[in-house]
Amino acid sequence: MTGQPALFPRLAEAAGEVWRAYTRHPFVLQLASGDLPEACFRHYLVQDYLFLIHFARAWGLAVYKSDRIDEMRRAQRLVAATLDVEIGLHVDYCRGWGLSETAMASEPEAPATIAYTRFVLDRGLAGDRLDLEVALAPCIVGYAEIAAERVNDAATRLAGNRYREWLEMYAGPEYQDLAREAAAALDEQFARRGGEGRFPSLATAFATAARLEADFWQMGLEAKR
Amino acid sequence: MTGQPALFPRLAEAAGEVWRAYTRHPFVLQLASGDLPEACFRHYLVQDYLFLIHFARAWGLAVYKSDRIDEMRRAQRLVAATLDVEIGLHVDYCRGWGLSETAMASEPEAPATIAYTRFVLDRGLAGDRLDLEVALAPCIVGYAEIAAERVNDAATRLAGNRYREWLEMYAGPEYQDLAREAAAALDEQFARRGGEGRFPSLATAFATAARLEADFWQMGLEAKR
Amino acid sequence: MTGQPALFPRLAEAAGEVWRAYTRHPFVLQLASGDLPEACFRHYLVQDYLFLIHFARAWGLAVYKSDRIDEMRRAQRLVAATLDVEIGLHVDYCRGWGLSETAMASEPEAPATIAYTRFVLDRGLAGDRLDLEVALAPCIVGYAEIAAERVNDAATRLAGNRYREWLEMYAGPEYQDLAREAAAALDEQFARRGGEGRFPSLATAFATAARLEADFWQMGLEAKR
Amino acid sequence: MTGQPALFPRLAEAAGEVWRAYTRHPFVLQLASGDLPEACFRHYLVQDYLFLIHFARAWGLAVYKSDRIDEMRRAQRLVAATLDVEIGLHVDYCRGWGLSETAMASEPEAPATIAYTRFVLDRGLAGDRLDLEVALAPCIVGYAEIAAERVNDAATRLAGNRYREWLEMYAGPEYQDLAREAAAALDEQFARRGGEGRFPSLATAFATAARLEADFWQMGLEAKR
Repeated sequence: MTGQPALFPRLAEAAGEVWRAYTRHPFVLQLASGDLPEACFRHYLVQDYLFLIHFARAWGLAVYKSDRIDEMRRAQRLVAATLDVEIGLHVDYCRGWGLSETAMASEPEAPATIAYTRFVLDRGLAGDRLDLEVALAPCIVGYAEIAAERVNDAATRLAGNRYREWLEMYAGPEYQDLAREAAAALDEQFARRGGEGRFPSLATAFATAARLEADFWQMGLEAKR
Repeated sequence: MTGQPALFPRLAEAAGEVWRAYTRHPFVLQLASGDLPEACFRHYLVQDYLFLIHFARAWGLAVYKSDRIDEMRRAQRLVAATLDVEIGLHVDYCRGWGLSETAMASEPEAPATIAYTRFVLDRGLAGDRLDLEVALAPCIVGYAEIAAERVNDAATRLAGNRYREWLEMYAGPEYQDLAREAAAALDEQFARRGGEGRFPSLATAFATAARLEADFWQMGLEAKR
Repeated sequence: MTGQPALFPRLAEAAGEVWRAYTRHPFVLQLASGDLPEACFRHYLVQDYLFLIHFARAWGLAVYKSDRIDEMRRAQRLVAATLDVEIGLHVDYCRGWGLSETAMASEPEAPATIAYTRFVLDRGLAGDRLDLEVALAPCIVGYAEIAAERVNDAATRLAGNRYREWLEMYAGPEYQDLAREAAAALDEQFARRGGEGRFPSLATAFATAARLEADFWQMGLEAKR
Repeated sequence: MTGQPALFPRLAEAAGEVWRAYTRHPFVLQLASGDLPEACFRHYLVQDYLFLIHFARAWGLAVYKSDRIDEMRRAQRLVAATLDVEIGLHVDYCRGWGLSETAMASEPEAPATIAYTRFVLDRGLAGDRLDLEVALAPCIVGYAEIAAERVNDAATRLAGNRYREWLEMYAGPEYQDLAREAAAALDEQFARRGGEGRFPSLATAFATAARLEADFWQMGLEAKR
C-alpha cells in the first residue's frame, strides 16, 4: 500500500455529476460563505447526531465482517472514535448551538437520514466488508474532500463565519489523516477482496451513496426556518 | 391462533395520526376518486417494481431467520409469490401503462424507496423475525386495509376509474386473505417470541415504517408531470 | 459462461489432501462397497435431515444477498428444491430405513452438523454471496463428484448394495446437472465479484468446509451401533 | 435491575445435566486438581486464542444489533476488552507456556471451536441481541461459575498447581464482576425484549451452547500428548 489512493478517485470520477452535486451542494457552498441560515445548520446537526449512531453500528458490523485481527482493530478504532470522541465532540458543539443531547435523541430520524444509513448497512450485510467500506466512503473520505476544497476556495469566507469551526475541523490535519487512512484501506481491500470485475457494482453503490448524501444536505437546506 | 388479529390493530392504534397519514394519504384518495394524475401513478408503478425486488429479499431473509420448517415454508411462499406471481403481474399491468420491465429496471431507486426497503431489512437483521415482520406489516397488511376502506367509501368512484383494477386487486378476497394470514402470523410470533416488554420498540418501528410508506405515496404525488 | 467450470477444480486442487480425505472418506468407500454398518448410515440420515434445514436457510440468505433478479431466482429455486423436493424425498427415503420425520426432527444436532452448517452461514454473512456459495460448494458439487467417482470405481458393488439408491441418485443426471449449474454459478460470480486477489481466502474457506464435511462422514462412521 | 440475576440461573437449571456436564467436565476437574496433562492445556490455549477472535466478532455484531447508545457502549467495551486486554493477556500467558502468537494464529481451528463460535454468531444474526447474549452466556457467565466452584472445592489443589493462575483469574473479583454484569444484562434485555413466550427457545439455545462448550473442553482433553 504505497503512493496515492487509487480506488476512491476512480469511484468519484465514475460518479461524475452525482459526485459534484454532493460535494458542491448549495448547503456546503452557503456554509462556506457563511450565508447558510442557522435553522438549516441546526436541523443538519440534529440529524447528524442520529446519523452517528448508525455510523457506529456500521463499524461494529465491520468488526464482525473482518477476516483478520488488524482489520478488526481498525474497525474497533472507528467504533471508539465515533462513540467516545465524535459523538462527544458533536454533543459539545451542538450545545453551543442550543441543542441538548436529550433533545436531539428524541427527534425522529429524517427520511434522508434513514435512507443513507440503512443503505450503507444493507450494502454491508448483503455484500462483504469492501462493499460496506465503499458505501461509507462518500461520507468519511467525502467530508475531507469537501472541507479541503472549500477552505481553498476564493468564495469561502472564514473570518466571522459562524460555521468556521465545522470547516476547519474537517479540513484539519487530524480528519484529513483519518480520511486518507480510509482511502488507503479501500485500496488494500480492493487488492485483497476485489478485482476489476467488482468495479461496476462498487461504482453503482458509491454513486447511490453520494446521491443519498446530497439528499442529506438538501434535507438541511429545506429545514423550516 | 383463533379469533381476530390482535397485534396489528394495536400497532396501528399506537401509530395514531401517522397511520392515518399513510392509509388516507392524498395519493390514495385521488387514486380512489380517479383524480390522480397518470404521471404520479406511473412513477409509483416504477418505484413499486423496484420495491418488490427488496420485498423478495426481505422474505429470503425471513427464510434464513426461521426457527421452524413451517416458518420457513411461509417465508418461501412469500418469496415465490413475489418473484413468480407479483412481479409478473406487476410487469403485465405496467405494460398496459406503457412501462416495460427493462425500462423500469434501469430507473434509479427513489430515496423514498431506498428509505423504506432498507429500513425493513435493517430491522430484520438487527432484530429477529418478529422485528422483520412488524416492519413489513404496514405494507402487506396496510395495503389490504387501504383498499378495503377506499372501496367502501362514498367518495370512491369505481366506474370509469382508470385505477379501478389496482383498487379491486388489493380489496379482493385473495389479497385480503394474504393480509389476514400476515396479521395472524404477527400474533403467533408475538406469542412465541414476544411479550409486552417488546411492544414499545415494535410500535416505534411500525410507526417509522408507516411514515416511510406515506413518504412513498408522497414521492408518487410529487412526480413531475 | 461456456466451457468447463474453472473455479471449482482450482479450489479442489488447492485443498489437496483435505479434498481427498473428504471425497474418499472411509464412510463413502464402505457405502460404495456395501460394507457400511446400517447404524452408521441411519445416524448420517438423521443428521442429514437436520442439515437440510440449514441448507435451506443458506439459500434463503442467498436470496437476500442477491444483486439481480436472476440471482434471486436461482437461490429461490434452491430453497424450493430443498424444502419442497429434497426434504420430502429424504423423509420418504428415511421412512424406508425406519426413521420418521418426527423422530428425526427431535434428535439433537450433532456437533459436526452444527460446525459445517453454521460455518457456511457465517461465511455467507461475513462475506458476500460468492463467499457463501464457495462454502456450500464442497457439499453441492462435492456430492456429485463423490457419487460419480464411486459408481465408476472397480471396488464399488451396486448389485445387492443396500445403499445403491443413494449412490445412483447423486450419480444420476438430475443431480449431476444441478451440481454443474452450481459450479458454473461459481465462475459467473468469480468473474463478476471476484478477482485473483480473492482466491487465497476463498481457497481457505473451501478447504475448511471440505474438512468439516469429512467430519460429517466421520460422525456417521462413529455412530454407536 | 436490582437483586439477583434471574434469567441466567433459570437457563442453567433448564439445561440440567448438560450444564453440569460442561461446568464439571473432567478437563476442569483435572485442571483444578493439577492433574491435567500439559499437552491438553496447551491445545486448549491455542484454540482459546482462535476462539477469542470470534468472540470479539460477536461483540462487534452486538454493537450493530444495539437499539440504544448505552447498549452499544457495553458491546464496544467488550470488543475492546477482548481485542485490547484479553487477547493481549492470553498471548502473554501463552508465551509462558511456550506458545507464540504467530504459531497460534497459524493453527487450524478445531471443529469444536468452529461449532461453538459459529453457532453463537448464527444465533445472533438469525435472532436479536438477546438471542446473541444468551448464546454467549455459557462462556462469559459460565467461566465465572466454573472457577468459583472449583476454588471452593475440597478436591482443588492450588499450591503447586501449574494451572493456578488460570483458576484465580476467572475466580478473581474482576472477572466475577464482568460475569455479574453480563448476567444482569440478560435480565435487562429479557425484560425489554423478552417475555415468557421466548423462554423455551432461549433455553434450547443455551443448552446447545453449553453442550458445545463441553465439547470444547473435551477437545482439549483428547489432545495428542
